[in-house]
Amino acid sequence: MNAQLSALQQQAQQLSGSVTRPIPGSRKIHVEGSRRDLQVPMREIVLARTPALFGGGENAPLTVYDTSGPYTDPGAHIDLSAGLPALRAAWVAERGDTEALDGPGSLFGRSRETDARLDPVRFPARNQPRRALAGANVTQMHYARRGIITPEMEFVAIRESQRLEAVRDADLLKQHAGVSFGASIPKIITPEFVRDEIARGRAVLPNNINHPESEPMIIGRNFLTKINANIGNSAVSSGIAEEVEKLVWAIRWGGDTVMDLSTGKHIHETREWIIRNSPVAIGTVPIYQALEKVDGRAEDLSWEIFRDTLIEQAEQGVDYFTIHAGVLQRHVPLAAKRVTGIVSRGGSILAKWCLAHRRENFLYTHFEDICEIMKAYDVTFSLGDGLRPGCIADANDAAQFAELETLGELTRVAWKHDVQTMVEGPGHVPMQLIKENMDKQLRECGEAPFYTLGPLTTDIAPGYDHITSAIGATMIGWYGTAMLCYVTPKEHLGLPNRQDVRDGIMAYRIAAHASDLAKGHPGAQVRDNALSKARFEFRWEDQFHLGLDPEKAREFHDETLPKEAHKQAHFCSMCGPHFCSMKISQDVRDAHADG
Amino acid sequence: MNAQLSALQQQAQQLSGSVTRPIPGSRKIHVEGSRRDLQVPMREIVLARTPALFGGGENAPLTVYDTSGPYTDPGAHIDLSAGLPALRAAWVAERGDTEALDGPGSLFGRSRETDARLDPVRFPARNQPRRALAGANVTQMHYARRGIITPEMEFVAIRESQRLEAVRDADLLKQHAGVSFGASIPKIITPEFVRDEIARGRAVLPNNINHPESEPMIIGRNFLTKINANIGNSAVSSGIAEEVEKLVWAIRWGGDTVMDLSTGKHIHETREWIIRNSPVAIGTVPIYQALEKVDGRAEDLSWEIFRDTLIEQAEQGVDYFTIHAGVLQRHVPLAAKRVTGIVSRGGSILAKWCLAHRRENFLYTHFEDICEIMKAYDVTFSLGDGLRPGCIADANDAAQFAELETLGELTRVAWKHDVQTMVEGPGHVPMQLIKENMDKQLRECGEAPFYTLGPLTTDIAPGYDHITSAIGATMIGWYGTAMLCYVTPKEHLGLPNRQDVRDGIMAYRIAAHASDLAKGHPGAQVRDNALSKARFEFRWEDQFHLGLDPEKAREFHDETLPKEAHKQAHFCSMCGPHFCSMKISQDVRDAHADG
Repeated sequence: MNAQLSALQQQAQQLSGSVTRPIPGSRKIHVEGSRRDLQVPMREIVLARTPALFGGGENAPLTVYDTSGPYTDPGAHIDLSAGLPALRAAWVAERGDTEALDGPGSLFGRSRETDARLDPVRFPARNQPRRALAGANVTQMHYARRGIITPEMEFVAIRESQRLEAVRDADLLKQHAGVSFGASIPKIITPEFVRDEIARGRAVLPNNINHPESEPMIIGRNFLTKINANIGNSAVSSGIAEEVEKLVWAIRWGGDTVMDLSTGKHIHETREWIIRNSPVAIGTVPIYQALEKVDGRAEDLSWEIFRDTLIEQAEQGVDYFTIHAGVLQRHVPLAAKRVTGIVSRGGSILAKWCLAHRRENFLYTHFEDICEIMKAYDVTFSLGDGLRPGCIADANDAAQFAELETLGELTRVAWKHDVQTMVEGPGHVPMQLIKENMDKQLRECGEAPFYTLGPLTTDIAPGYDHITSAIGATMIGWYGTAMLCYVTPKEHLGLPNRQDVRDGIMAYRIAAHASDLAKGHPGAQVRDNALSKARFEFRWEDQFHLGLDPEKAREFHDETLPKEAHKQAHFCSMCGPHFCSMKISQDVRDAHADG
Repeated sequence: MNAQLSALQQQAQQLSGSVTRPIPGSRKIHVEGSRRDLQVPMREIVLARTPALFGGGENAPLTVYDTSGPYTDPGAHIDLSAGLPALRAAWVAERGDTEALDGPGSLFGRSRETDARLDPVRFPARNQPRRALAGANVTQMHYARRGIITPEMEFVAIRESQRLEAVRDADLLKQHAGVSFGASIPKIITPEFVRDEIARGRAVLPNNINHPESEPMIIGRNFLTKINANIGNSAVSSGIAEEVEKLVWAIRWGGDTVMDLSTGKHIHETREWIIRNSPVAIGTVPIYQALEKVDGRAEDLSWEIFRDTLIEQAEQGVDYFTIHAGVLQRHVPLAAKRVTGIVSRGGSILAKWCLAHRRENFLYTHFEDICEIMKAYDVTFSLGDGLRPGCIADANDAAQFAELETLGELTRVAWKHDVQTMVEGPGHVPMQLIKENMDKQLRECGEAPFYTLGPLTTDIAPGYDHITSAIGATMIGWYGTAMLCYVTPKEHLGLPNRQDVRDGIMAYRIAAHASDLAKGHPGAQVRDNALSKARFEFRWEDQFHLGLDPEKAREFHDETLPKEAHKQAHFCSMCGPHFCSMKISQDVRDAHADG
């Protein structure tokens, strides 16, 4: 098998170098929790001294949130064909409410395992799936509601805090008052607060027991705004090694979760490679694979095929499932007169199924059966918005809002089962209609985390939809969305390449951070303050390193002023040495200090 | 002289090919006004028939606003060394309130004219400057207040309307109700409405009598939101031919006005080349050149040097001047404790002058003298925000708002002289503080058009500040800003190259359009509707052509699916042929139509 695999393995190894180089000016650190095996990864940015001209003095290192996993740690040994260390395995096992299975519980999983033709693409290390003991519920929500603070919850509390307590410079801590539209953001994120938010359903901690490699994270309006990046091959492009590389690339730049939207060949094997190597939560849309199993004929879908797909994927370790259970028979006609009809793939598949069978959506009728599966592995619901608007004209229409009301109903059903739940949102929405979406979601879904795609604020910029959508994403993030699904520049046009993924993630990291600033999230402004101080003091390297993309910042600077000396220079290339407002401004400050 | 100029001319000719190719899928049209010489340029996008599968039918051509001037017209003869046709010359002359001068009225202009060393870089066609007759006031505001509708006003009314009356498809005209925060947007833009808005000071029509090549445009919150692109050489980079090319490039992508911020050599000659070849309004910051005249020593500046610079530039045809007259002695100490001090170049120069002389800013004390110059050429004020915040921490502080109050006072002085006036705004502002800026500006400055730089909604993304700022720009545009000054990805890092200019403009075209949609500007949604209809019907070419950047859209599409056949395909590369939600959605529509 090793010989057969070597081509893929070798390819993966080759790729890893270009995506795993350390992030400049910083080092990986781990903050220990209440137990030795609770090590929360963060990134520490080392800063230079303030030059004497500006008063001198040390600048303490700044700690920032880090999604990149071990890949950016020069000390970590990366072997993609072995997968990441199973850092949560002990936590899952010691709870004593799960069992290891002999083999896959799904028919499909078993058939793949015994198919020798798949050996060349199979993930080499066999994964023994776990499942809840009969009658047990292993969701974080279930623990939270029973008052238990899990190691995952403690991990998240430490992670969200970003060592804010270590910031000693009072000037860095200064922050404008936020406007949070009714959020309940605490001054300090404690494990108990995390537990309480999960118990209330206001936050989710997506961590399948079969994905012990993951570093816990939380999604909720009272925590840092998160972003998701989509990867996945399709019929027309992309192989396994490329997808694993896209994963590593996406988390390098700040993807908090990654959805694997593969629709092509080897979808099962690709997913296994991705999950085993992912430190972030992985989401999928199981209906895509179910449709492949019936050769693309939506009308041939059945609950049995779908159920088997859920078990297959849950046992691989998928952390959240998009389930389009809100597309009801009575909603479909509401979308018929739209300019762009139904644009969600999942939504259109289920609408077609409903029409073909003249029966209710089987995801809706079997929703409690799905809950039973979710709670046996702790898979989080992401209730899909199959009727989201695909253009400005269709925004906030009857179809969209009818579905949202159904999603609210389903949220309450899921919560009855202690299943973690988030709710997906639009889409294309002009600015003046965005808040109505957020307000209705909060009302209908009881503050379950909203997870929105964009929204795009205009339809007329194909090629730039990372920007049309980042605008809407920033606003809805401010209003209360907990996670923003990125959009790349290739949206509507083609499949994103590496550069597109980076551009999409950067636009969304900006959106998420600008939202946190506006909401007044505690400590959100520290990094802005530190970067601006560095900028004023002409600490060029620090300015690059404190930015979201240090490599791009340096590259742009060096295009105009490539010399090393210019990074010590007390001017920048926009104005040249005789014309620097920062310099004059320093003179003004000195003059004022003198007189 | 011709022989000496040939190098520059040749360079300019070579460049023009790459920036002047026609915009795909469209043609330049001219809409005639009440007189034969009133020809308003627009761009007509030709659309394909709806395929039979989607019901068939013609799609009438769509007319869109066009800033690109004759450069994108294959029928136009472009000779950069001759300049564009002086299309407004007759309108200016026939008013009978101006005279042609024998030569430059400024000392500096005369000295440049007689300096033979400048022959190789001088614009070859001599420009005879015009000035108002003694005692005359030639501003559009002055005419408007006397009830006169000038050809410029009629031109603007036709231009703003974008042939909306020609749209016959009622579905395309459907539009969500806007939220305009107290704007007074009419259903139809008439010449009388234009006149009234200019008379009230709620809009400006920046058109120096010495820039007769310009195609009139209007800036005001009740009109389409405009964007400005900055160009300009500096001590470290860029020559004349490059700047002219940047101008043509910037207006190709949608720059409504262009500011020439040159600070390097041949600033006078560069400006002449730019203005003579510019169909859009040109703005400058005269203090930059004044500072060059005193070798960069701010304390050596004087009213006499500044006055001569204003006359020099006004006689070249600059349409609006940024004047930092609001930086007062008493404001400067308010900025001393800021994180990034004074970041406006103009602001810091004047602050330094005030400190050096312990006297009030001479732009403030001579403000009425400046008004006298403005009204002799119809130069529009852009009252500079020299104390704008340079980081999130400094947003909405005492320094910024004290200056804004002074700008309100100066607006009223300018209006007393019937001088057109807009007011500049920030800067760096977190989302929750943006609206306070707009509201205060409207209140203090009596609805004079607000012209904002961004604002940037976070400091932590150097390399992506076109995005951090487009987010803030879209919001402030919605709230009422009339013109958005673009920011490129190179902001804070280096000088923008061509790609940066295009990226910056696209981000701002998106911001401006998303603002218009949100305000409910009449007809703003037509293009979105047309593009989305094309998208749903798989009219790929139409989707590209209706976008803001047809070339980029096609390039991205072809990266994944390069074949011509794929542009007729009823699927796209994101999902492949068996997985298209648009296709399924059409099936759903058909099914619903049947049953």
